[in-house]
Amino acid sequence: MSASHPVPGRIICFGEMLLRLSAPAGRLLPQASHLELCTGGAEANVAVSLARLGHRASMVTVLPDSALGDIARDALRTHGVDTAAVLNGPGRMGLYFLTPGAVLRPSEIVYDRAGSAFATADPARYDWKAILDGATWLHVSGISPAVGELPARAVLEAMRTARALGVKVSYDGNYRASLWAARGEDGAATLRSLMAEADLAFAGERDFALVLGRPELAEGGREQEAVEAAFAAFPQLAHVAYTRRRQIGVQQHELEGVLHARGACAVAGPFDLHEIVDRIGTGDAFAAGVLDGLMRGRGLEESARFGLAAAAMKHSIAGDFNTASRAQIEAVASGSLDVRR
Amino acid sequence: MSASHPVPGRIICFGEMLLRLSAPAGRLLPQASHLELCTGGAEANVAVSLARLGHRASMVTVLPDSALGDIARDALRTHGVDTAAVLNGPGRMGLYFLTPGAVLRPSEIVYDRAGSAFATADPARYDWKAILDGATWLHVSGISPAVGELPARAVLEAMRTARALGVKVSYDGNYRASLWAARGEDGAATLRSLMAEADLAFAGERDFALVLGRPELAEGGREQEAVEAAFAAFPQLAHVAYTRRRQIGVQQHELEGVLHARGACAVAGPFDLHEIVDRIGTGDAFAAGVLDGLMRGRGLEESARFGLAAAAMKHSIAGDFNTASRAQIEAVASGSLDVRR
Amino acid sequence: MSASHPVPGRIICFGEMLLRLSAPAGRLLPQASHLELCTGGAEANVAVSLARLGHRASMVTVLPDSALGDIARDALRTHGVDTAAVLNGPGRMGLYFLTPGAVLRPSEIVYDRAGSAFATADPARYDWKAILDGATWLHVSGISPAVGELPARAVLEAMRTARALGVKVSYDGNYRASLWAARGEDGAATLRSLMAEADLAFAGERDFALVLGRPELAEGGREQEAVEAAFAAFPQLAHVAYTRRRQIGVQQHELEGVLHARGACAVAGPFDLHEIVDRIGTGDAFAAGVLDGLMRGRGLEESARFGLAAAAMKHSIAGDFNTASRAQIEAVASGSLDVRR
Amino acid sequence: MSASHPVPGRIICFGEMLLRLSAPAGRLLPQASHLELCTGGAEANVAVSLARLGHRASMVTVLPDSALGDIARDALRTHGVDTAAVLNGPGRMGLYFLTPGAVLRPSEIVYDRAGSAFATADPARYDWKAILDGATWLHVSGISPAVGELPARAVLEAMRTARALGVKVSYDGNYRASLWAARGEDGAATLRSLMAEADLAFAGERDFALVLGRPELAEGGREQEAVEAAFAAFPQLAHVAYTRRRQIGVQQHELEGVLHARGACAVAGPFDLHEIVDRIGTGDAFAAGVLDGLMRGRGLEESARFGLAAAAMKHSIAGDFNTASRAQIEAVASGSLDVRR
Amino acid sequence: MSASHPVPGRIICFGEMLLRLSAPAGRLLPQASHLELCTGGAEANVAVSLARLGHRASMVTVLPDSALGDIARDALRTHGVDTAAVLNGPGRMGLYFLTPGAVLRPSEIVYDRAGSAFATADPARYDWKAILDGATWLHVSGISPAVGELPARAVLEAMRTARALGVKVSYDGNYRASLWAARGEDGAATLRSLMAEADLAFAGERDFALVLGRPELAEGGREQEAVEAAFAAFPQLAHVAYTRRRQIGVQQHELEGVLHARGACAVAGPFDLHEIVDRIGTGDAFAAGVLDGLMRGRGLEESARFGLAAAAMKHSIAGDFNTASRAQIEAVASGSLDVRR
Amino acid sequence: MSASHPVPGRIICFGEMLLRLSAPAGRLLPQASHLELCTGGAEANVAVSLARLGHRASMVTVLPDSALGDIARDALRTHGVDTAAVLNGPGRMGLYFLTPGAVLRPSEIVYDRAGSAFATADPARYDWKAILDGATWLHVSGISPAVGELPARAVLEAMRTARALGVKVSYDGNYRASLWAARGEDGAATLRSLMAEADLAFAGERDFALVLGRPELAEGGREQEAVEAAFAAFPQLAHVAYTRRRQIGVQQHELEGVLHARGACAVAGPFDLHEIVDRIGTGDAFAAGVLDGLMRGRGLEESARFGLAAAAMKHSIAGDFNTASRAQIEAVASGSLDVRR
Repeated sequence: MSASHPVPGRIICFGEMLLRLSAPAGRLLPQASHLELCTGGAEANVAVSLARLGHRASMVTVLPDSALGDIARDALRTHGVDTAAVLNGPGRMGLYFLTPGAVLRPSEIVYDRAGSAFATADPARYDWKAILDGATWLHVSGISPAVGELPARAVLEAMRTARALGVKVSYDGNYRASLWAARGEDGAATLRSLMAEADLAFAGERDFALVLGRPELAEGGREQEAVEAAFAAFPQLAHVAYTRRRQIGVQQHELEGVLHARGACAVAGPFDLHEIVDRIGTGDAFAAGVLDGLMRGRGLEESARFGLAAAAMKHSIAGDFNTASRAQIEAVASGSLDVRR
Repeated sequence: MSASHPVPGRIICFGEMLLRLSAPAGRLLPQASHLELCTGGAEANVAVSLARLGHRASMVTVLPDSALGDIARDALRTHGVDTAAVLNGPGRMGLYFLTPGAVLRPSEIVYDRAGSAFATADPARYDWKAILDGATWLHVSGISPAVGELPARAVLEAMRTARALGVKVSYDGNYRASLWAARGEDGAATLRSLMAEADLAFAGERDFALVLGRPELAEGGREQEAVEAAFAAFPQLAHVAYTRRRQIGVQQHELEGVLHARGACAVAGPFDLHEIVDRIGTGDAFAAGVLDGLMRGRGLEESARFGLAAAAMKHSIAGDFNTASRAQIEAVASGSLDVRR
Repeated sequence: MSASHPVPGRIICFGEMLLRLSAPAGRLLPQASHLELCTGGAEANVAVSLARLGHRASMVTVLPDSALGDIARDALRTHGVDTAAVLNGPGRMGLYFLTPGAVLRPSEIVYDRAGSAFATADPARYDWKAILDGATWLHVSGISPAVGELPARAVLEAMRTARALGVKVSYDGNYRASLWAARGEDGAATLRSLMAEADLAFAGERDFALVLGRPELAEGGREQEAVEAAFAAFPQLAHVAYTRRRQIGVQQHELEGVLHARGACAVAGPFDLHEIVDRIGTGDAFAAGVLDGLMRGRGLEESARFGLAAAAMKHSIAGDFNTASRAQIEAVASGSLDVRR
Repeated sequence: MSASHPVPGRIICFGEMLLRLSAPAGRLLPQASHLELCTGGAEANVAVSLARLGHRASMVTVLPDSALGDIARDALRTHGVDTAAVLNGPGRMGLYFLTPGAVLRPSEIVYDRAGSAFATADPARYDWKAILDGATWLHVSGISPAVGELPARAVLEAMRTARALGVKVSYDGNYRASLWAARGEDGAATLRSLMAEADLAFAGERDFALVLGRPELAEGGREQEAVEAAFAAFPQLAHVAYTRRRQIGVQQHELEGVLHARGACAVAGPFDLHEIVDRIGTGDAFAAGVLDGLMRGRGLEESARFGLAAAAMKHSIAGDFNTASRAQIEAVASGSLDVRR
Repeated sequence: MSASHPVPGRIICFGEMLLRLSAPAGRLLPQASHLELCTGGAEANVAVSLARLGHRASMVTVLPDSALGDIARDALRTHGVDTAAVLNGPGRMGLYFLTPGAVLRPSEIVYDRAGSAFATADPARYDWKAILDGATWLHVSGISPAVGELPARAVLEAMRTARALGVKVSYDGNYRASLWAARGEDGAATLRSLMAEADLAFAGERDFALVLGRPELAEGGREQEAVEAAFAAFPQLAHVAYTRRRQIGVQQHELEGVLHARGACAVAGPFDLHEIVDRIGTGDAFAAGVLDGLMRGRGLEESARFGLAAAAMKHSIAGDFNTASRAQIEAVASGSLDVRR
Repeated sequence: MSASHPVPGRIICFGEMLLRLSAPAGRLLPQASHLELCTGGAEANVAVSLARLGHRASMVTVLPDSALGDIARDALRTHGVDTAAVLNGPGRMGLYFLTPGAVLRPSEIVYDRAGSAFATADPARYDWKAILDGATWLHVSGISPAVGELPARAVLEAMRTARALGVKVSYDGNYRASLWAARGEDGAATLRSLMAEADLAFAGERDFALVLGRPELAEGGREQEAVEAAFAAFPQLAHVAYTRRRQIGVQQHELEGVLHARGACAVAGPFDLHEIVDRIGTGDAFAAGVLDGLMRGRGLEESARFGLAAAAMKHSIAGDFNTASRAQIEAVASGSLDVRR
């Protein structure tokens, strides 16, 4: 908020943005007389978190030139994300409809993103050299290639340009089975090529099992082996991070944060999360928290701890974005639950 | 409500349904933290009105098999519309985003209906002989052909089957310039072929100018001439109806209802409409009111009067549907403004 | 608000209280997913207005000993009305359901007050001598006798006790045709006996036509004659007051306030009322405004003017109560429309 | 949703419908500026659940011919319940006011159903032979006789006609002590005569203790004995079902479902239910789930399991109705808590 | 509610009132498009609770003569608190902004009370002899002296006048570190002088450590010793009460109530509080519950038990006030969680 | 929205920002259970409008380092205003409470801005040379000096630095009598010194009468003379602009826009404004519209016309900001009222 934090780096986030339309808590979608509106998208969520934490974060995406596209762009601006590289193009605004779960009823998402401006944008529209100039990190995810062939090409080109320019690459696996199924494949080859460009991967044993073609790694209990196999297969990979989540009820989870370097591992938590407000975007909040640590040069333990606190914080905030300040996340990390006056 | 009204007929309404997502009154879309949700679609609006007025009304459409499609179907059921002929199919739910106008700022609609289940449905899915069996009227509109080639074929087949079966055909011009522009044509030929099947047309001088290829008829002051030209060109056409609207402000209109038979014309109104709540669907409410008159065998004057009262009533009700009862519409027609206790 | 106003008198208001459940603006009752809740009742409305204007006002009624009854009692207390004489008794809380009108659609009220604690209360429960001790005015209305035989007896006893004690009596005709119809009579005899006890009557030509058995007085244009006939028939009657309302639309009225003394008459207004928020209780607001003038010893003109301003003010406030302060009503009377900073 | 489910049967549900007016969560009734409105009634809740699960369900009741009555009827139609046998009649709409509980504060219900159209309807208005023609099941409850002598006669006649026609009878005890107290008796004789007509009873040890005149069965630990005594006393009784509920807090329960046949018993659960949204109607959701199993010819285990999942699901949905689809209930039964995309 | 409770005493509560502006649940303050408004203040909270429990409670404070001040005064009246001694004066209305916590994110309060009418009021404005005439108790807190020097003098004068008149004095420590820090001291001397006037102190080991200058008493495990030291140091002190709270999550606490007399101690609870709605004002609810016991002459055990039940109840009610009735609090004390019909 | 507009200039806006807390429409402040929150301030309103119109706009102000201050800053960012020169400082966030008027009841504003961070900021904190570097315009108002001596010095220094740097100065008189009264003077001398630095003044005859010490100019009918006197007295003054407003009701106005150059004058309108949504900030919207014209080098007529259309548009938008796009304002200017699809 104030100018007292030195800003450690500049991160470019690239991916699709979506508007979320949610039924009110405790109601099924057909019971709703109104839907709550917010903006999201995995990579935008990371951008917002990092901007709130004092980093210079820029978003790269394509939005329709309409009131809906403006909503998404303005939401980034509100939180201090630079939108100079947000393009307008033909096509729809991607939407998703959320029915928040309760008790033992899981949350349900109906995607309505086909034909979006992002999915149909020509990869040549992104001038990656200009965009990445002066950046220290690039953040992308495995959702973009799942959305379509054009974004798949764009994301790979972004990663390769980053590496050529010495910009570090953060990659969140974010496997979306239903999107790949709609494309008639499992995406393993494409995702492997992306993973090969990452310095930091937010990915777990199932992601590695897929891209390494070793399904047995996903069968349980082989998490450490999967990480080691990933480090072996992807020589540029320096860090791997993920959360472990145990669900007692739809609104009661236990959460740990894990951050691996080659030959070292930090585990933070577990945190007991009760009366969860909104779990959408908690993985992105974790990613942003870990990135904050690495961008500031903090150690494994502290980065894992802060990433987990950021993820825990997000469970208490409605919407896709973790808009909490550093001080608020530190308060969660400290464990104090008293009213702060 | 009670069983005291003899039910004069059975009407089949065919067309696309849409979910409407509206910004709250007095707010632009990007100011909205939630959007109000309701169901609409020109032909469905007519079906709901007529069901509320005691007619047997059935809807024919294609909806996605999703929570969004269910919302549309259930909305019909709520108001007593028969949904046995509502089909499920692949594709999206058509949406539109409404920013209600105020003062001198016009209302704005952003359509998001491309790729809908209705627009992409194979016309062969509709078994028109079975659907129209026992019906007295079919109601369709010029929106369906504007939506795509497949619906264009379906609506024409429906109209021709109706005529073959002796079912009367009601057709609402509802010209949508932007949809036709997106298809690269003005639709005149298609719309002419539809108009040729209609017993009753909700259409005005601009519609007739278009389908008759006589643009001069739309230049003002030639309304009567246009209607006569239409009666001349379309021998089956028995009635033509439309409203005349003068707008003093976005929420202040003056409205007349006009109903022509060959050689006769009734004009109802004008009504002064202040503090308008919602003008979407007022044309459909008028159509339903006129249809009610004709289905009950009422005269021109009474049908025009009831149609205008129904349209006026709809201006006072939020949402696309005119869900008012016959008694409530009669109260508007009577001109009494006192609190009814 | 402050203690700077000398308090001119103490008024006792007696009548039934009701909870109002309203559909949101622009929606029919069946469209409502929630109903707005407020408290009302003609006599309670007068009590609240006068308490807000700095008078000592006490309410006498019977409420059920339930959360619903508590809502009504607490609403009085909020506005400074004394509730020491509010009794609890068996029976229901009276309710009414309001669908606010719009454009040309009139507001609709569905009463659900049968079997209420007030309607079924034994008149012997009210100790009128104690209640009226120290009071300067009693205010009652013609609704109470319409509600049932027991309240009819109670209200007459209250009026007669008041007169015996030298307490002035204010009576609002408030004719409710549907309630009398449900009792199988028109109430003329009962209402005449009440009118005979009044010092001040809020009543117009139709009320007088009824109680005087002279229906021709209500046929229009004979307002002055009706008032003179009332003064002739009811020797104790000192003042007659009413509003004249011309309705251009459901939310656009023109309003005048008329106050007669024997041989003198003041007419205030007209006021043009646009975009009316809530017209329920505007007659009670007028009554309170006129009573304020008479209780303070103001002249006819000023009392009529203040009564009309109070009525006009109420059209801008949601709910049954006119909770405006004297300063706010004076601002309306002054005609200034600028933002007050 | 789609036509793919064969519809196994047709069920007639008979009972009173009520409108529910609820304070918002976390507020006492007098704190509420608005009340949430929904429709309920034990038997209607069952009808809606079964219609949502693909059965043909019809409601039989009497509603007032008013906007309030229309709300109740339309709510049934929304969910696909047939309303051809819903009658209009004189009398009020039954209401109840709900203050939802929280933490250790129990939920509170204030009934306001005296004088309802249902309670005062002449039993001769129901033509049971016509209504039950073609049905496979009748569902009634012990609330109807508690509401009044007229409904008591109607429900018994319905049950006996059903048995005469070979329609199976489902009976939910639903003992309402306060309603019987208001009638000056405990209802044991009447309820025994109803229980004697049931093929399936939703009833537990306290119900059986009452109707068998054996209060000791309700003293705890004698559940199995009570069920056996019921099977012995009521020869037609084929199945007995109930839930066992342990309450840790107002919004934290543990729930089991029990279904007995003669000589066999299935117990499903327990399920841990946290952050409960709405527990009203959960017993009816259980009843509908068990009925679905029996109507589809499923075994004891599967019927108990599905009934319990349906009950658990209802705890996550606001309102009286369980409007969940079969797929959503199966998801609860499967135990998966992940977001469904 | 009814007049059946004998009223045991009359209590005067003195302190600052505040308006609370809260973000909706699950949202950070900058996410809020509206803020929920309610009235509070530690001493006013006690007054409201006791008035709801049937005591005569009067509030003494200074409010601005504005719509904001009126809100605070009217909120007292709603709940039956006497406001005859509420003064108007220059200065602002004190405000506070609340962001309710969730999951592991603590609630946050931003005070905006500087320059309030209360803080800047001349102590000479309070005529304590007149105010305390006929009272049995005075209730004050340690917040008043923290707010400023003028209120510090006023509260001490009130306490001393009370003691001189034989009115018992209840004092709630309510230590506010941030307010004292803003005044540049820790307040120990001032608070000691207040504690010296109290018959009943709501205070725990940290309060006693401060005023006794024995910081080691606050180091944990020395609660009993601290209470004994307080009884030794303050001869007039007859009772000491406090709660013990263990926080599992922001919305899950375990709570005990402790009440000491000289030589005796009662501990009530613990109660497990889940899904907490609002914890603000729970300490005041406890204080009012204990005061109710002492004012009614109940024993230590019963007073502690009722105080704890009142505190537990408050956790289920939105806003600062515990507006529950005696019957509702008794229901919590009884432990029954079933729906009350 | 898109990059197609060349950006004509860069404007610096300096002044206090306020949070607005509004009662819902149709309710008095004490009736509100929640208050709507938005951000405003005369100069910030201009900055937001101009940023929405495609200009580079920067805000200079001082905000508290709190969640409230962040709300104000983030609101600027949402709309694309540069916040690099927004400072944090000690002191409160300025607030104002708005009761929106209706019918004949004027809107009421209660300011609560004493002691704000802006009002108490040392003028030395603003580095005007750096801030104004590269700017083409500076916009300030007469509110800043009314707020206090420190802002008065700051605004004068800003204006003088601007003139020294060749940055044009826009000045809005915005006379606030109540703020000056609180400072014990009428501000004429101070405001004259500000007016002397302006190239463009938003000011009318009353402003000029004050600063010229010629009260007779404000007596009506001497508007032209007042403007000429201003041009004579202030040699640098190139343009004078203001609106003429006639109020028929609180929500019905007639509005003209007037723009003078030396020797030339353009009058736009009148526009009839009905059902006004929000009139706060309409003067600022006019100012921004006129500034847009001048910054783009448009003529008097076009600048006046666009300014008036912008002002008219603002009447249809809730909140202080006119967030409409150029296309939306042009639509108002065009006079078309039809739904835009």
